[in-house]
Parts: sequence; C-alpha cells; structure tokens
Amino acid sequence: MADSFATRLSDRVDRHGPLCVGIDPSGAVVRQWERADDVEGLEYVAQSTLEAAVDTAAAVKVQVAFFERFGSSGYRVLERVLSEAHSASLLVIADAKRGDVGSSNVGYAEAWLADRSPLAVDAVTASPFLGVGSLAPLLSQAHQTGRAVFVLAATSNDEGRAVQGAITDDGVPVEVSVLRAVATLNERGGLAGAGGAVVGATRARPAFDLSQLGGPLLVPGVGAQGATVERVERLLRGVPRGTFLVNVGRAILERGPLRLELRDAVRRWRDDLAEVFP
Amino acid sequence: MADSFATRLSDRVDRHGPLCVGIDPSGAVVRQWERADDVEGLEYVAQSTLEAAVDTAAAVKVQVAFFERFGSSGYRVLERVLSEAHSASLLVIADAKRGDVGSSNVGYAEAWLADRSPLAVDAVTASPFLGVGSLAPLLSQAHQTGRAVFVLAATSNDEGRAVQGAITDDGVPVEVSVLRAVATLNERGGLAGAGGAVVGATRARPAFDLSQLGGPLLVPGVGAQGATVERVERLLRGVPRGTFLVNVGRAILERGPLRLELRDAVRRWRDDLAEVFP
Repeated sequence: MADSFATRLSDRVDRHGPLCVGIDPSGAVVRQWERADDVEGLEYVAQSTLEAAVDTAAAVKVQVAFFERFGSSGYRVLERVLSEAHSASLLVIADAKRGDVGSSNVGYAEAWLADRSPLAVDAVTASPFLGVGSLAPLLSQAHQTGRAVFVLAATSNDEGRAVQGAITDDGVPVEVSVLRAVATLNERGGLAGAGGAVVGATRARPAFDLSQLGGPLLVPGVGAQGATVERVERLLRGVPRGTFLVNVGRAILERGPLRLELRDAVRRWRDDLAEVFP
Repeated sequence: MADSFATRLSDRVDRHGPLCVGIDPSGAVVRQWERADDVEGLEYVAQSTLEAAVDTAAAVKVQVAFFERFGSSGYRVLERVLSEAHSASLLVIADAKRGDVGSSNVGYAEAWLADRSPLAVDAVTASPFLGVGSLAPLLSQAHQTGRAVFVLAATSNDEGRAVQGAITDDGVPVEVSVLRAVATLNERGGLAGAGGAVVGATRARPAFDLSQLGGPLLVPGVGAQGATVERVERLLRGVPRGTFLVNVGRAILERGPLRLELRDAVRRWRDDLAEVFP
C-alpha cells in the first residue's frame, strides 16, 4: 500500500470522525434479526452492517470468531466482506486477537498483513500473553506493508484485570508495560507508528500518557458494554485527533435488521462522537 | 462424543505413550521440503506429517496460523486434515490460542468445540490474557461435548515471562494464578477435567503442583525449542500417566520430506519418551 496506516486513518477520521462500526454477527444477533444462524444469515448480518457504515464511519472492525464458527465457509464470507469493505474505502480491522510464539506469528502475519492474502486487512488485533516481543513478526510485517497491529493492553471486560493488572518486573501493571513496549518499538524500534494498542473505555485510565504511544489507539467498550462517549472523551483527552478509533458494536447491531434503522444508528453514534471530538 | 476427553486421552496414551506430533506447515518448512509454498504444498506437508503419526503417536497438534495464511482455502485443507486425523483415531488438538471477551468466545467455542462444526477438534488451546473467567464459554462447551481446553499458563518461549511472570493480586505469578483458576474450575466449577493447561518444558517449573490440576497438560518446547525428554520428566514428576501430552514439532518436521525418515523420527521420539515415562 502506498500510504501508511497512520495517514489513511487520519484521512478517514478527518472526513467521518473516529467511529468504527463493529461487525459482530454472533449467533445471538443473527437470530435476533430473525434469520437462520447459517452462513447465509451470517453474510446477511455482516453485509448489512457494512453497508450501514459506508460513507458514515471511518472504519469497521470484524469479529473473526463469528466467521470462524462456520469453518472455511465462514471464512469465505469473511473474505467477501473484507473485499467489499476495501472497495468502499473503509479502514478494516480484523479483531482476531492472534498471538503465539514468534515462528507461528509469522503465519498470522502472512494471513492478516500480507498484500496478497485473501484475509488482508488494514490492521489486526493481537494478544501479548506470550510477550510483546513474540509479536515482532506481526509488527514488522505491518510496518513493511503500511498496516498496523493493535496490541491488547487494557481490554474492555472486567475479567481482564486479573492478568492485565498484574505487576511486572518493572513495577508497573501488565497493561502499562505493554503500552510502554509498543511506544518504545514505535519510537526506537523502527515501527514508526505501526504499533497500536487496544484500551477499553470501560476500565480506569492506565497509568500511561496515551498521547505518547506513537501509534493508533482502538477503544472498545462503548454502548452495550457500558461506556459513554463522555467517558471515552476523558480517556482520550490530549490524544491527537486522527490517531484513534472508537468502536461501537452491539449497540448498533441490536437496531437491525431494518437497514434504515441501522444506518440511523450509525449516524447517531457518529454525531454523538462529533460532539465530544469536534 | 461418548467418552470424556480424559478417557480418550488415557486410552491413547496407554497404547502409544504421551507423544503429540506437531503439524506445523510453515512457509519455511514447506520450502525446506522443496515444495512451492501454496495450498498444495501446505496440504502435502500436513498430510505427510499426519500419516507419520498414525499408529505411533497419541495425538497431533495442528498449528492453525499456518493454515490461516491461505484464508478459506487454507481452512479447507485444515478441515480435511482434521477429518483424516479423526478417522485415524488420533486425538486432535487445535493450537489456536484463541481468547476474547466472553460473548466472542461463544463464537470460538462453536468453531472448535461443537460436534457439527467442520473445525471440531478434541481440544483447543486458549489464551487467558482477558482473564480465565472470559474463557467460560469455551470451557463449558468443552465439558458438555466431551472435549478439553488447554489454557496457556507458562508458554515455551522466553518472551512469555514478561506477562506470565507478573505478580497478580493474589501475590503469585500469572502462570500460577492461571493454573489455580483452572484447577478450581475442574474441582468445584463443574468442569470435571475439561480444563487443561499448557506448561512449556523450556521454562522453570511453576510454583504449582501440576498433579493437582485436575485436567490434562500439554507440554511444548521439546526438541527444536531446546528442552530434552529428561527435562520433561522432571517437570512432570508426580503427574499421573495418561493425563499429559508432550508435543514435538519442528524436530520431526525437519526430517521430512521422505516419509520413511519422518516415520522413523516419530518412532524415535515415542521410544525416547517411553524410556522416561515407562
């Protein structure tokens, strides 16, 4: 890709604000939309949500788990959704939370961050349970191809604190240690902004100045998970516009299946975010 | 499935010992086998390794990252490999290291642990970065369908210590906290052995009595990653036979592509393990 992820993110947010729409076609949502929970139902929910996001949101985030439910058939649907999203110039994040030893992460880098892969996206989420160091193949592949990796730091769920709040050898919680490691890689490790982080809006603000990450931020937890846009604004105060995305998933999906309602829900979240991030 | 994972594991290990063969068709291995690194090369490496394991090993562990490299086409190969492995009565572990918030883990449970899924396996590996609590949908689905989840506790890579050695609110390292949480779920949470753990043979033995896990153990890191069978024996001293698997991946794969050589490598690892686990 010609531009870096940072440039594409900044351009999209300039035009549409920081809203990222979560494409989360769980069995529960498919059934709530009164469709059979099969690959056709999956594709219907995913494509309808995608259409509602076009020309209104900056990005979409696909939850890979819900496509994997149907094995290779689900992945074929995912490939079509990614292809449509790219055509519509939406930024696309795969919420895959991948993470393994380095040699296996080479495989995940090829899957999600290589130009020729059918699963290629603008950014993928990754889990640092095996150490931020183990994610090097993902991070360097992202840098080389103008993409990004959002490394989990502080996730939006309550149970996350058990591990993410544990104290590392440096005397700081895991979530801070992860943010520091990513910031260092961006600044001195040659990543130049390909290293991003996930910081949930539902949790207390980590003891780290988020404006110093040097890479993009993805903020989940807004809407159904309980965080308000005001809470997001407090979390991101001082972080430059155009360097973060705020994800809204279930709160939009539960407004389906009527397309007008869905589109209206996306517009309202965009407008709500525009009020606190003018 | 009729029997629990614990029963099937015990039966297989009785007959073949604790060897689990890693099916890791990375680009590097496919090229080392002098094949083009495409879906045909992927399938050739995976099926040849599988064949070498039949009638000799207790189990195979497929590294999902290397199939995901080719998107839905790679997953079709994976589905065929899983189907062949089931037919050959091998226990099959998907090394997927999945882990997300609970609502998304429902999707991963449907993918890997539901009878009708094309990706159904006997056990899947899962990452507790979002808390062991977030893995409840995977663990309960495993219990209900006679399967297991191997939760990452102490992984085999050096970088893993950064997070897994951090000290939790209980005053113990994350790896011990994870093992305790899984043991509690097995004993009092109704999981009855569906909760397993991954403990690498390359790391210092965690400060937890592994014989008290109440579920199966998966031990990677043997061979190419540096751990010897003697080291594995020390790690597992006191753990009952038939409740653990020792994975060997690259050290076998690098003996390919000749099938006789591969089969010979599998037999030798089986025999080496039989010496320390008679």
